Amino acid sequence: MPLSCHAFVAASLDGFIARPDGGLDWLEPFNAAEEDHGYDAFIARMDGIIMGRGTYETVLGFGHWPYRLPVIVLSQSLTVDDIPDSLADHVAITDMDPAELHAALAEEGWQSAYVDGGQVIQSFINAGLLTDITLTRVPLLLGQGRPLFGPVAGDVALTLLESRSFPSGIVSSRYAIARP
Amino acid sequence: MPLSCHAFVAASLDGFIARPDGGLDWLEPFNAAEEDHGYDAFIARMDGIIMGRGTYETVLGFGHWPYRLPVIVLSQSLTVDDIPDSLADHVAITDMDPAELHAALAEEGWQSAYVDGGQVIQSFINAGLLTDITLTRVPLLLGQGRPLFGPVAGDVALTLLESRSFPSGIVSSRYAIARP
Repeated sequence: MPLSCHAFVAASLDGFIARPDGGLDWLEPFNAAEEDHGYDAFIARMDGIIMGRGTYETVLGFGHWPYRLPVIVLSQSLTVDDIPDSLADHVAITDMDPAELHAALAEEGWQSAYVDGGQVIQSFINAGLLTDITLTRVPLLLGQGRPLFGPVAGDVALTLLESRSFPSGIVSSRYAIARP
Repeated sequence: MPLSCHAFVAASLDGFIARPDGGLDWLEPFNAAEEDHGYDAFIARMDGIIMGRGTYETVLGFGHWPYRLPVIVLSQSLTVDDIPDSLADHVAITDMDPAELHAALAEEGWQSAYVDGGQVIQSFINAGLLTDITLTRVPLLLGQGRPLFGPVAGDVALTLLESRSFPSGIVSSRYAIARP
């Protein structure tokens, strides 16, 4: 069975997933809204999580580790020594590129991977490896921050699969991504 | 009656309203989809159009002038000599800032202005003068281009008024903008 890769990410209306320092404070009122944007159902279908160093360090800063799934951190600079002992069974570091990692995880039997973090999502899109993206669009302009999207080799066409809006003002839209 | 200012703008999923050279070719398949995204009803409620030089020059390049409403071009560099004779009754140039122009048009009796172009939309948001924005989100990643949004003095909160999706994959969402 092939491995499909999925992003589920919140972004401001102007396309940022975090403030310049990684801050996510602006998301808190929306997380507190007790709306079901589909995250629990999404992550329940995943076999593991692939994220970048920026996302990993942001999540470490939460003070509690929120994931039960195995997490793989894509980084050229981190090593196994950067993983706290308490997370040694939960987190692995790799310097593989998306295609190498995708092949390795498929070989291990992963069927669905949750891909998180702006740069990692971009690298999977550019490698033609992101199956779909669920974009939780938050009704705020931040003006600056870490962008969700970045350069692409050519136009990337997406297919809207569903879109829902919520009383908080969030619009959640799921798109399939055409392979280049 | 106060003058309200409204944007109605198509953007790629990664937030661009035009390619780096102003190109809008990527919108053509979506314009041809014969879907009613609400533009005709929108413009029918407007008294006139405020746009920037970039948008004006893009529209000039269409070869036919698409507007019946009066158009005011905000520019520090264009002069009345840059307006073709055929448009002399339809287009005016001004170097006023948004607040000055807003006051002048309200004085003239305008009640609803259509504000178009990324930089002009941004300047009206930053002046606290944009009432609402209808964002026609096109399911494409362009990777680069002219951005819809830009720097803001602080977080800008928006209120989602409505959101609709279309078979083409477009998601159209209308937001009211809180005054700073």
